[in-house]
Amino acid sequence: MPDTRLDSLRAALPGLRLLTDPAELEHYGRDWTRRWTPAPLAIALPDSVEDVQAIVRWANANGVAIVPSGGRTGLSGGAVAADGELVVSLERMNKVLGFDAVDRTLTVQAGIPLQLAQEAARERGLQYPVDFAARGSCSIGGNIATNAGGIRVVRYGNTREWIVGLKLVTGGGELLELGRALVKNSSGYDLRHLAIASEGTLGIVVEATLRLADPPPPTNVMLLALPSFEALMRVFAAFRSRLQLQAFEFLTDVALRHVLAHGAQAPFDEVHPFYVVTEFASDEASEAEALAAFEQCVNDGLVSDGVISASEAQAAQLWRLREGITESLAKYVPYKNDVSVRVSAMPAFLAETQALLGREYPQFEVVWFGHIGDGNLHINILKPDAVAQADFVADCERVTKLLAEVLQRHGGSISAEHGIGLVKKPYLWCTRSAAEIAAMRGIKAALDPNGIMNPGKLFDA
Amino acid sequence: MPDTRLDSLRAALPGLRLLTDPAELEHYGRDWTRRWTPAPLAIALPDSVEDVQAIVRWANANGVAIVPSGGRTGLSGGAVAADGELVVSLERMNKVLGFDAVDRTLTVQAGIPLQLAQEAARERGLQYPVDFAARGSCSIGGNIATNAGGIRVVRYGNTREWIVGLKLVTGGGELLELGRALVKNSSGYDLRHLAIASEGTLGIVVEATLRLADPPPPTNVMLLALPSFEALMRVFAAFRSRLQLQAFEFLTDVALRHVLAHGAQAPFDEVHPFYVVTEFASDEASEAEALAAFEQCVNDGLVSDGVISASEAQAAQLWRLREGITESLAKYVPYKNDVSVRVSAMPAFLAETQALLGREYPQFEVVWFGHIGDGNLHINILKPDAVAQADFVADCERVTKLLAEVLQRHGGSISAEHGIGLVKKPYLWCTRSAAEIAAMRGIKAALDPNGIMNPGKLFDA
Repeated sequence: MPDTRLDSLRAALPGLRLLTDPAELEHYGRDWTRRWTPAPLAIALPDSVEDVQAIVRWANANGVAIVPSGGRTGLSGGAVAADGELVVSLERMNKVLGFDAVDRTLTVQAGIPLQLAQEAARERGLQYPVDFAARGSCSIGGNIATNAGGIRVVRYGNTREWIVGLKLVTGGGELLELGRALVKNSSGYDLRHLAIASEGTLGIVVEATLRLADPPPPTNVMLLALPSFEALMRVFAAFRSRLQLQAFEFLTDVALRHVLAHGAQAPFDEVHPFYVVTEFASDEASEAEALAAFEQCVNDGLVSDGVISASEAQAAQLWRLREGITESLAKYVPYKNDVSVRVSAMPAFLAETQALLGREYPQFEVVWFGHIGDGNLHINILKPDAVAQADFVADCERVTKLLAEVLQRHGGSISAEHGIGLVKKPYLWCTRSAAEIAAMRGIKAALDPNGIMNPGKLFDA
Repeated sequence: MPDTRLDSLRAALPGLRLLTDPAELEHYGRDWTRRWTPAPLAIALPDSVEDVQAIVRWANANGVAIVPSGGRTGLSGGAVAADGELVVSLERMNKVLGFDAVDRTLTVQAGIPLQLAQEAARERGLQYPVDFAARGSCSIGGNIATNAGGIRVVRYGNTREWIVGLKLVTGGGELLELGRALVKNSSGYDLRHLAIASEGTLGIVVEATLRLADPPPPTNVMLLALPSFEALMRVFAAFRSRLQLQAFEFLTDVALRHVLAHGAQAPFDEVHPFYVVTEFASDEASEAEALAAFEQCVNDGLVSDGVISASEAQAAQLWRLREGITESLAKYVPYKNDVSVRVSAMPAFLAETQALLGREYPQFEVVWFGHIGDGNLHINILKPDAVAQADFVADCERVTKLLAEVLQRHGGSISAEHGIGLVKKPYLWCTRSAAEIAAMRGIKAALDPNGIMNPGKLFDA
């Protein structure tokens, strides 16, 4: 039954594309978590900043909650609309608006997919270095909403470092033009940084100016086989001390087996418990340092085997072993943890977490991988066919509470790069104090006085 | 007459060092602006986070305003206490608390002078790369309060990029532990970035964890003589395209003459209207590129003369020409503008500003210099002896209003790196919209509900 409130929205914005078909509501109402039943009021697809502002003003006047929507590749439920919200999808606002060769910036509408922004930078002889497997589907606006990380953080940092300007339509309907691509600007609170990682709870990011970098050097990819978890951080230290690493990722044999079952090619004849994918410049000096690090690690018993890419095709093949994991697990509807600690805290945290999960998950398959060079670990728990989804999630939540206690002891984060959304809201306490959460609530009230922006995400009002 | 309110502070914190001597009140109540008459209630010198919290709780209970105080080298009046405030000086909280070789972080109390933090990093084989002339007196807490920039921003960015954790005692008296040195942490609003550049209006930064970098390479310093303002950005482009610049600073002949009168040595036999000090790695390849850039600029008529340092002593001598400016001008009690635009906007902005200042300041000497590679220009107007201070400031404020209009048209900032404080508060509108300022007010209310933290700075309540 169409909601009569939409009549006033249609009247206010006759040109606005508005979807209410049940299939569309389902499509736009969910993200990659698949845990909530989509139930949005409608889907709005504005094509201008003015339309976004008008929608927000209408939502305030009519008490309708808004869920900002990008590529909906999120893994924390931040873009889920399960409670009669108006989904405001930025997918039609997906254009490159400008490029400045002197400032080395690319200005884009927030709905542009990451990959298109990367390509636009490449066409101009530069790079936008944030990168991860969902690049084709996720949007820059969503990347900003979660301060997305990915596989290049060890070299280039998170999304935050690359956003020099953004336009935000606040929950109050104001258009704020933040940062404005200035290298230096000490003129009060940096609301741009406040918008980054706010998960759509303060407003809708409608435009962004991305800082670009020199193109990456030609690189080599190396796959290492490790005999133990304990070796992992020592191998990282050995490589990091000799090389500027472009990436340093790890996966377990369990993860590798899923990717191989999904069609990838086995890298070694033998099976090893742990693997690392690392990438570095392919100049002579870097290759020599990489081989020296490799030999040192073999001699120290930290690495059992290794292979280095001899071509771009082989590099892509090795990367597929790491990047294909999430896709290979999708059919198991995994429960995901995305946690981080300081790199220095990683050895103790890994040992404690390995013991915890071994003890608590005897019944489930647990797949470990992650951006270990950033202290970021992904833990995927696979649902066996025989177990009901609700029971499975309940059991995983019980263990996540225990994991949160470990994280709190080690000063870690319950969300390294996926955001809090709905999934991790019950565990925010382990990373942010009650006083911090209270401050966040107060800040939200300042920018979104009627609480219409993505309510219930991140924290409860 | 000692305020009786202090009795309750003394009773609450018997061990707290508290100064009320008029000479101390004057010393701690002013910063480098020298425009306001110091009139604090008293000076508190806590030596622990707990004491800072207790002071803030007392201030809330007694309705006393607090001015957080570092090295008071600020140029915008942010640390001025001219209205019966309690100055909370961090100068006794000046210790290095920890170093982590794996995370490459240095944790310090906020009162530590920048230079001591730099030295602590150097002793550990690393560098803290934020740097500027006030290094010996300014404090890390003050650097954070203004997101201090300086002479290395073109290579390393502002203070913000190097603060991976900080502890903030909010105006409400809560101790927030922000960032916690995590490389990845997407768990809600980044209050660390909110505290940076907040000029003590949200709370008192009591500790900071600094990210450290590899030590800088051995460098050469080059001084260039330029025939015109128009050449400046083209010379920057020529050098930047060939070299990783460690610094790129400019000054006018007027500025140079003041430094020479202050005892520095003339670099060239002839007088040139503009000069650039630039620094780059001294390896063979960089030197060759620098010389090629130099020759290209000479051939294009952009550079008239140049000298390259042949020793560390000579490098220091060349740097003195730039770094000695502020000191050489101090006796003139200059009125200071510290503005920025995007680097791409610099040529048009420079032309317009030069015309404006030539037209409006026929009666005053105007000294230009700055971090031109960051789009940051310092304009110092010198007070003639014969003009009364109040008349001089009034005339400069009239022109600053015109300059603010130019800045607004070019999307620039009225404060690149000094902060807004009291000095630039009347011009904040040219950089931040009314909606942004309203959002800032709301955010302040969330963290400092009674408005006791540095009231009247940045914006009026």
